[in-house]
Amino acid sequence: MKKVAVILAGCGVFDGTEIHEAVLTLLQLERSGAQYQCMAPNIDQLHVVNHLTGEVTEDEQRNVLVEAARIARGEIIDLAQASADDYDALIIPGGFGAAKNLCDFAINGSNCTLNPDVQRFTQAVHGAGKPVGLICIAPAMTPLLFGPDTACTIGTDADIAAAIETMGGRHQACPVNEIVIDHEKKVVTTPAYMLAGSVLEAASGIDKLVTEVLALR
Amino acid sequence: MKKVAVILAGCGVFDGTEIHEAVLTLLQLERSGAQYQCMAPNIDQLHVVNHLTGEVTEDEQRNVLVEAARIARGEIIDLAQASADDYDALIIPGGFGAAKNLCDFAINGSNCTLNPDVQRFTQAVHGAGKPVGLICIAPAMTPLLFGPDTACTIGTDADIAAAIETMGGRHQACPVNEIVIDHEKKVVTTPAYMLAGSVLEAASGIDKLVTEVLALR
Repeated sequence: MKKVAVILAGCGVFDGTEIHEAVLTLLQLERSGAQYQCMAPNIDQLHVVNHLTGEVTEDEQRNVLVEAARIARGEIIDLAQASADDYDALIIPGGFGAAKNLCDFAINGSNCTLNPDVQRFTQAVHGAGKPVGLICIAPAMTPLLFGPDTACTIGTDADIAAAIETMGGRHQACPVNEIVIDHEKKVVTTPAYMLAGSVLEAASGIDKLVTEVLALR
Repeated sequence: MKKVAVILAGCGVFDGTEIHEAVLTLLQLERSGAQYQCMAPNIDQLHVVNHLTGEVTEDEQRNVLVEAARIARGEIIDLAQASADDYDALIIPGGFGAAKNLCDFAINGSNCTLNPDVQRFTQAVHGAGKPVGLICIAPAMTPLLFGPDTACTIGTDADIAAAIETMGGRHQACPVNEIVIDHEKKVVTTPAYMLAGSVLEAASGIDKLVTEVLALR
């Protein structure tokens, strides 16, 4: 049975992992007969966003690992403790947390840097020839994680696509129900809520991404 | 197109709504061609639980509606503003939040009382002859919401079943992939994470519950 690492970035679309994308990923992994282990960096979130108002809550701080544990029902480990040897593949769901907590793309755009634990673990998985799937905005990390000219998609947003190209990436426009595959690099991406208007639309691409990630192993 | 109200109780299994159950409910509603509107009471949570350690965070307070907005991607309304006339049915996912924030069953067991907004809205939906579905621990509210002798299930937990019977309810043991239907009262219940060991197991009962709730309308 294949075992897949899932990196979470908190809990909630505006400051953490997009919840629907994470649950849809876990559901499709189970449907495909795969096991999974959720993990997250043990760091403070960039900030906390009130998801009712959309405003940043200035006086509050939350921990990425502790909040991600909500999605994982407590079954989660510190990303710093994870070893690539234990997994057959890696999937990183989206949500702004991927661009705020796993890297700083949301602040620095094409000048962004990666969280060290995200970089170490993801590059170890990739370096072992194992597939990696990235969802929604998470593919903005593709050039930094896998080197220049790696094919990826964040959907159709021209500004974000341009930033990825500036970082050396190769962005391809992609509809919500499709995936982009870099076969050589074994990297699979899908737009999900960069384009999705419903849970069902997000699922249409995520189901394909999970299936392809498992097939590439 | 049928429109279904979904009452959330926060965001996270230990102090709010069970996230997987909520997302699976929304997914199956969309698959069935139904619309939905998430809503939650605008009140403080009973408490905040650190989902990594399982411990209560003594010095922290969160709002049920604000946290539930994470699951709903911001698309949520105050339960106090919701009118039963606008909906064809109601579904209440589980998680400890249903027994801590929507009522106080987690503290007071068979002596529990209902949140006034939950009581008003749910009884208005029920009073209009519209179906109500309750998932996981949420069916513990069944006797108070729909009167004595209403059939329901929380799975197979003997203590909780006895408490429901003490409140005048009619508990029926039920496996995770099945539902209990009270046809006369139009109340449908399923155990989900009271018994489920995986997202897929939770989905097996929730998918049936959503389908039946829509069929009863």
